[in-house]
Amino acid sequence: MDEARLRELLDAVAAGAVSSDDATRALRGLPYEDLGFARIDHHRALRQGVPEVVLGEPKTPAQIVAIARAIVARGDNLLVTRVSPDKARALLCELDGARYDESSRILSLEVSPPAARAGTVAVVTAGTSDIPVAEEAAEVLRLIGHAVVRRYDCGVAGLHRLLDQRDTLAACDVVIAIAGMEGALPSVVGGLVACPVIAVPTSVGYGAHLGGLAPMMTMLTTCSAGVVVVNIDNGFGAAIAAARILRGRS
Amino acid sequence: MDEARLRELLDAVAAGAVSSDDATRALRGLPYEDLGFARIDHHRALRQGVPEVVLGEPKTPAQIVAIARAIVARGDNLLVTRVSPDKARALLCELDGARYDESSRILSLEVSPPAARAGTVAVVTAGTSDIPVAEEAAEVLRLIGHAVVRRYDCGVAGLHRLLDQRDTLAACDVVIAIAGMEGALPSVVGGLVACPVIAVPTSVGYGAHLGGLAPMMTMLTTCSAGVVVVNIDNGFGAAIAAARILRGRS
Amino acid sequence: MDEARLRELLDAVAAGAVSSDDATRALRGLPYEDLGFARIDHHRALRQGVPEVVLGEPKTPAQIVAIARAIVARGDNLLVTRVSPDKARALLCELDGARYDESSRILSLEVSPPAARAGTVAVVTAGTSDIPVAEEAAEVLRLIGHAVVRRYDCGVAGLHRLLDQRDTLAACDVVIAIAGMEGALPSVVGGLVACPVIAVPTSVGYGAHLGGLAPMMTMLTTCSAGVVVVNIDNGFGAAIAAARILRGRS
Amino acid sequence: MDEARLRELLDAVAAGAVSSDDATRALRGLPYEDLGFARIDHHRALRQGVPEVVLGEPKTPAQIVAIARAIVARGDNLLVTRVSPDKARALLCELDGARYDESSRILSLEVSPPAARAGTVAVVTAGTSDIPVAEEAAEVLRLIGHAVVRRYDCGVAGLHRLLDQRDTLAACDVVIAIAGMEGALPSVVGGLVACPVIAVPTSVGYGAHLGGLAPMMTMLTTCSAGVVVVNIDNGFGAAIAAARILRGRS
Amino acid sequence: MDEARLRELLDAVAAGAVSSDDATRALRGLPYEDLGFARIDHHRALRQGVPEVVLGEPKTPAQIVAIARAIVARGDNLLVTRVSPDKARALLCELDGARYDESSRILSLEVSPPAARAGTVAVVTAGTSDIPVAEEAAEVLRLIGHAVVRRYDCGVAGLHRLLDQRDTLAACDVVIAIAGMEGALPSVVGGLVACPVIAVPTSVGYGAHLGGLAPMMTMLTTCSAGVVVVNIDNGFGAAIAAARILRGRS
Amino acid sequence: MDEARLRELLDAVAAGAVSSDDATRALRGLPYEDLGFARIDHHRALRQGVPEVVLGEPKTPAQIVAIARAIVARGDNLLVTRVSPDKARALLCELDGARYDESSRILSLEVSPPAARAGTVAVVTAGTSDIPVAEEAAEVLRLIGHAVVRRYDCGVAGLHRLLDQRDTLAACDVVIAIAGMEGALPSVVGGLVACPVIAVPTSVGYGAHLGGLAPMMTMLTTCSAGVVVVNIDNGFGAAIAAARILRGRS
Amino acid sequence: MDEARLRELLDAVAAGAVSSDDATRALRGLPYEDLGFARIDHHRALRQGVPEVVLGEPKTPAQIVAIARAIVARGDNLLVTRVSPDKARALLCELDGARYDESSRILSLEVSPPAARAGTVAVVTAGTSDIPVAEEAAEVLRLIGHAVVRRYDCGVAGLHRLLDQRDTLAACDVVIAIAGMEGALPSVVGGLVACPVIAVPTSVGYGAHLGGLAPMMTMLTTCSAGVVVVNIDNGFGAAIAAARILRGRS
Amino acid sequence: MDEARLRELLDAVAAGAVSSDDATRALRGLPYEDLGFARIDHHRALRQGVPEVVLGEPKTPAQIVAIARAIVARGDNLLVTRVSPDKARALLCELDGARYDESSRILSLEVSPPAARAGTVAVVTAGTSDIPVAEEAAEVLRLIGHAVVRRYDCGVAGLHRLLDQRDTLAACDVVIAIAGMEGALPSVVGGLVACPVIAVPTSVGYGAHLGGLAPMMTMLTTCSAGVVVVNIDNGFGAAIAAARILRGRS
Repeated sequence: MDEARLRELLDAVAAGAVSSDDATRALRGLPYEDLGFARIDHHRALRQGVPEVVLGEPKTPAQIVAIARAIVARGDNLLVTRVSPDKARALLCELDGARYDESSRILSLEVSPPAARAGTVAVVTAGTSDIPVAEEAAEVLRLIGHAVVRRYDCGVAGLHRLLDQRDTLAACDVVIAIAGMEGALPSVVGGLVACPVIAVPTSVGYGAHLGGLAPMMTMLTTCSAGVVVVNIDNGFGAAIAAARILRGRS
Repeated sequence: MDEARLRELLDAVAAGAVSSDDATRALRGLPYEDLGFARIDHHRALRQGVPEVVLGEPKTPAQIVAIARAIVARGDNLLVTRVSPDKARALLCELDGARYDESSRILSLEVSPPAARAGTVAVVTAGTSDIPVAEEAAEVLRLIGHAVVRRYDCGVAGLHRLLDQRDTLAACDVVIAIAGMEGALPSVVGGLVACPVIAVPTSVGYGAHLGGLAPMMTMLTTCSAGVVVVNIDNGFGAAIAAARILRGRS
Repeated sequence: MDEARLRELLDAVAAGAVSSDDATRALRGLPYEDLGFARIDHHRALRQGVPEVVLGEPKTPAQIVAIARAIVARGDNLLVTRVSPDKARALLCELDGARYDESSRILSLEVSPPAARAGTVAVVTAGTSDIPVAEEAAEVLRLIGHAVVRRYDCGVAGLHRLLDQRDTLAACDVVIAIAGMEGALPSVVGGLVACPVIAVPTSVGYGAHLGGLAPMMTMLTTCSAGVVVVNIDNGFGAAIAAARILRGRS
Repeated sequence: MDEARLRELLDAVAAGAVSSDDATRALRGLPYEDLGFARIDHHRALRQGVPEVVLGEPKTPAQIVAIARAIVARGDNLLVTRVSPDKARALLCELDGARYDESSRILSLEVSPPAARAGTVAVVTAGTSDIPVAEEAAEVLRLIGHAVVRRYDCGVAGLHRLLDQRDTLAACDVVIAIAGMEGALPSVVGGLVACPVIAVPTSVGYGAHLGGLAPMMTMLTTCSAGVVVVNIDNGFGAAIAAARILRGRS
Repeated sequence: MDEARLRELLDAVAAGAVSSDDATRALRGLPYEDLGFARIDHHRALRQGVPEVVLGEPKTPAQIVAIARAIVARGDNLLVTRVSPDKARALLCELDGARYDESSRILSLEVSPPAARAGTVAVVTAGTSDIPVAEEAAEVLRLIGHAVVRRYDCGVAGLHRLLDQRDTLAACDVVIAIAGMEGALPSVVGGLVACPVIAVPTSVGYGAHLGGLAPMMTMLTTCSAGVVVVNIDNGFGAAIAAARILRGRS
Repeated sequence: MDEARLRELLDAVAAGAVSSDDATRALRGLPYEDLGFARIDHHRALRQGVPEVVLGEPKTPAQIVAIARAIVARGDNLLVTRVSPDKARALLCELDGARYDESSRILSLEVSPPAARAGTVAVVTAGTSDIPVAEEAAEVLRLIGHAVVRRYDCGVAGLHRLLDQRDTLAACDVVIAIAGMEGALPSVVGGLVACPVIAVPTSVGYGAHLGGLAPMMTMLTTCSAGVVVVNIDNGFGAAIAAARILRGRS
Repeated sequence: MDEARLRELLDAVAAGAVSSDDATRALRGLPYEDLGFARIDHHRALRQGVPEVVLGEPKTPAQIVAIARAIVARGDNLLVTRVSPDKARALLCELDGARYDESSRILSLEVSPPAARAGTVAVVTAGTSDIPVAEEAAEVLRLIGHAVVRRYDCGVAGLHRLLDQRDTLAACDVVIAIAGMEGALPSVVGGLVACPVIAVPTSVGYGAHLGGLAPMMTMLTTCSAGVVVVNIDNGFGAAIAAARILRGRS
Repeated sequence: MDEARLRELLDAVAAGAVSSDDATRALRGLPYEDLGFARIDHHRALRQGVPEVVLGEPKTPAQIVAIARAIVARGDNLLVTRVSPDKARALLCELDGARYDESSRILSLEVSPPAARAGTVAVVTAGTSDIPVAEEAAEVLRLIGHAVVRRYDCGVAGLHRLLDQRDTLAACDVVIAIAGMEGALPSVVGGLVACPVIAVPTSVGYGAHLGGLAPMMTMLTTCSAGVVVVNIDNGFGAAIAAARILRGRS
């Protein structure tokens, strides 16, 4: 239930088109719905302007299905992240109308198409192997309603590949800079653009890379002022941060 | 040299009030000025909308004075962070018109008062001991031109202290949430507000706190979607990130 | 052999109903029974009021069966934790009367139903994925004889989900607060209730979460005074700690 | 303001001895008092049965004095932990009636003597150098009203030193086991007693001891079921945990 | 080739029973034999009194077979550690006369029975799951010629299980104390006996146990003077250290 | 496209044998070719004298094939590192003329044989299990055109195995010293030779070895002046570093 | 009280030269003496053959004096390690007959000269800066009664400095190998000698050396079989380990 | 004694100008001179082409003076690194002709001016605060005889500051790239030049920077092929590595 649908409902009540009882029933789930093993935060869309997103990885298919049905039952779009191909196959059987995007590992079910929002986000990666994290961010942003510009494999070891994108990046409202290995990309991007830069370290690398801790430390200690960081491989978090930033734009 | 002053200069050239030669001389320092031991990025104000800020801690007083004079000589405001009281005393003797703020440890020299900018930032701390980091953020924001709302000692162990500020926080455009110890504050704040939340871990704590690594990890692994993180004690970085976010607001 | 059964035996000896020889034989196993590869601590029930619990994970099925038979042979209830479904299948064939609880991964064999004990324990989780750890704690408590109140998916990012449980928690004697990700839940719970709070970090998370080290550090550095911590995923340990605390209650 | 004083006040109102206005004024500070840089949680005593304790280490003397005066002004006892001798000297000049205990580094001001509470706590250390942490715990417990039994230098390398205390420990309601170096003490104590054992790692040690992380890990991974852990050197936290545990005892 | 066989060969030369040429040929392999991918140190037995032992884990079956044949060809006994059951099956087909011990994961081929050596070694474990490491140590010691006394599952949480072994341990010349979880066993053993104590941390545990780093730190920071430590799970290293210690005994 | 082929092309243009249009077409790909998911740096060979090498491990077979075809289409030799046997099988079907070297896990496709370059590189390993990393380095060097001398299993525990190679090493221009376990080899080699020594830690080891961090730390803190280090298992990086060093030799 | 003095006392009782009462009084202190803040283990000398040694670093001068007097009062030699020069000055005033050795930082008071014991220990260091740790080991060994051979600054970067000592080391019964920086020395020494090698990492180094963790890891993961390790800078522990090893020698 | 002086001496012997006895005396110190606490490696200059350099930090002034005199006595130039200003003052009094360079913290005594060697080294820093490490490298290179080009404060956050130096860097034979904070500089430099790049992480930074571990990890996991790394703040090591690389150049 997002703000638009809430207003619609209340207008209908005011106009006598919907009875108080029915409106109450519709709103009863708020602030959350208790499934026993999960409490679904239906009014997050209302409170924060982004839908409740389900982190699929640690949940069983049965848990996901139950949560998904509760969300869809309220008329909200469904977004499940970190769904393995195997789990996706099981879920697609249970959830009519759902679709699975293999590169982002996102399973979604769009009850209604997301309304377009102001603000374009550039999603840039250092390497080819960082693309799944980038696609997670891009797909989440698409479902929220933002335009996305993708620029992949722009690592700083071949600087011209990044410098060529300078004008493109400068024209965006937020840049999400994604890098594994040593994670130097956001430092350089942060110096090239004036808009907010959200850095995402990835687990792509080996040895001293420590599963992504090395680029994470790189990004947190950046000499590029004002670059902010989210958790390793957290494309979803970067997208939501971008949506929070752009929420005030018209 | 910020955008306003640049435009003024170019208008003057267009109007014949300033000769091309003089304008060239004024702009010659761009893109940076080489002091031998430092390259001052005078046009960062132009490129990114925030002044070049000097990290005072690892520099000698002599280095700071030289850099400060080069900045002031171009008509820019000066902002030096992490200046110890001892070092401040030495610098105040050398830099006429400078002032030192002990709680934020910032030394500044305002050639002209900062122009007010749209966007209010809430600076919230979990404890009393996190205040120096908060003041660093607040003072940097003030010098950039943003309004700041301070709410200190709102840690989650006494939740009512934070919940009382809910309306205040909801009315701001960005929240900077600062916490040492276990660093849980930004997770809770992230659930209360819809605007961007910048989390700053601090080095206040002991034992398993690991000099701030524990709250840093807490903040990076937050279950509050879209909360972003900067380095430990990096009040300055949080302020610049807020300024980048608010740059697009009118 | 617990205290009640010991007293019963000794009374029977005093009353002449059991010969000294038979009593000796019954007690001979004390203080422990040596199986060669394991020394079973039969009198722990006597000494500490909780049965000897077998950590199933690193043991072979053959080892578990041998230990289980020795425990049951003395008339004690059996409790094996961290049993994988595969291993459980093998054990159920060998141990008549045993039952396996998939969500807690506990295999138990109740020779006699556990006597009810004073003291109710609330088991609270931050997320849905923390439930297996919670169920391990709850099942161990049930077998010791304590009442358990479950409240799952109450993470601090949607604070109202937790605040709604405030009265329930306040009515309990001990709270076990279980959280993965950033582990902020016990800090907030610790501020809401006056009873002992046992924090359990879980391995649910990724990246900077470090397999549970991040929430563990969070909980150890909590600003909520008097919150205590057990090892990552150690639902069993939290339950025994609760039982130790409640042992003095009548 | 603790529960007893609250009831007294309300009785006086009921009896007409105190006007509603005066009672309101007395209660107005609740739930907390805002000093600008600190929010003092006066009703924690009410909520949790333990007084608000000030962590002295990271605060300036001026901050401590202001907080102390606000606490004392409400008739509550004052307890400041981790006060260095230098800072103590400054505070004793400002706070009439305060006393400083050098071995526990606690500064206290007892407006009224703490009422005795049921429950005795054993405070045991592995070495001589762990005594300051033990004294912090013991002094906090004394000010809350619990009896304390001290047993110091009982490390496991000379096991007879610990085994001699077995009967003493068995007679207590809670054991706080404090150890630096390898931190093995709580594992052994946990096997000797049936009551709750709170383990406190200390920063006493060197090399692989890692400032207390080694004994902390030791204690968290203990094979002694039900031993719980607090942060390194956190004698205060252990004492509050013990007080929470004993709160239900009569 | 060990010292006894060398002396025998030289005596035969002196007696004219073996020609210089044949002796030279026999000794030619010294100091090592180059297989291209491996250099086998045949005279280590001579230099150090222990046979060259092959670490089987990271090597391919083909590499092990080639090395094994070179060792056996010189008349030395073969000892391969850390051989998985699968790899063992393949090796047993290729190496006539070899035998595989599943609990220690050692594959051996005894050309001649090991000569008995002075000195008995106690191998003690804290838990049942530490047995594979203990068996690795015990089997290596057996093949070197030392008597071994096994005492398993003597963890410090049930101290009587260890104290019962005090006389047995006191009668041995070296104690190898093996423990996972918190690794407290060697600290206690070190206080009970006067002989050398070699501590072996194991990877048995979870969470804060960090794959064995926690007990390793425990053992290195022990307050039991003179306890020495080898790498995690390194039963082999502990056995060789014991053999070095006992080498001087008659 | 390397420098030789570039000069040839330009000479042909100068001689009229190739039209400007054709030359332009040939050079058009510079500075990189955009495949959407990857930007291939064709002129790296020109800029740095080494071909673009593809890190195969984190890429899908489809991505590798697409990149490989783009490289080969320009007439460059192809070199893909860290290709698993399974992936290799798939790639060999798609890429005519490719060959796979199992011990180095390198897949290559030589359009033209590499031209010999001045400078011999010694590749030395401490153990047999370090050979795959060594072969990666050796194979990359061979494809660049350098002579390679292999010396394997020369660990410092049997020093004579290394000292025997002293003259061989002294005759080389660069030594790549590769070691897992404790990683002491480069320290000793660094003292034996005067030429550059590139140290490569490997992931061969267990326990305190920490996946290669231990030998990496060993090598970085070496007392052998001038030894330099690359990432764990990074045979490729060591080879390129050697090639950079030898680039100036004639 | 060591074994010799005990036998002497009992013989005197048997001969009627000492009354039972006097003997009882002399032995009453056993097994330990309780000073309140310390429990002195007087019969450790009896149990383990080495005197009780006081770790001076974390104790106050007053604590050391009290413990020292209790030890000397029983006729035992006193040995205090890690005494800073400042603390030593204070102690020398209080303890008649004590002497302080600045290089080992040991304060000792020899009631009677240590009896010579069989077994010579080589103490070898990699660098000049490791000498204080070496001297701590050497001085402890001297006070126990063992001969010590010192060989300093034999690091592996200049291998000939170590190889020159090969015969000397081979003639010793135990080698203590001490190294900071990368800690490679014990690996090489372990391959040169057949006797026990005790490795001591030191805190001499910087950067990736991590306060001694790097050489500690090096030593624990050594490929030199049978090398054992003690804590960083723990010269004392190495000496006691050597004494334990040599205890069985005649 | 370097190669030139050795040849000169031998020529003089051949010519009869120097007697064998005198030559023997001159060479007697080889291979090292034993001062008891130090073994000076006089022929390292011969073996490796670089003088023995003394690491001043962990040594006492008396030790440095003794070593210095032994080096100068043989006619070699003296180079002591990491000398604090205080220590320098003491040393300058003792060592005639010595000079101290405060920015590099190097104390040197040039018996004869260093002969010029082929090869220019660029020393580049990311920030102003990295200069002391850079100066250590530059001064060591100067004393070995190489030309040095300094480029300071070229961090990647203001990329134009670095790109401006591209031609300068391309004209050098080796680049030493020094950076604290996130350490991204060498990754970018590695992509700009074809010559060897030696990366030096520095301890300049705070928080997640971990005393230099963060930039060290960054540099080791660089995506810029062939960049090599030395220890944190190890300007000296980088210089010697550069000298090893350039040794083969004419």
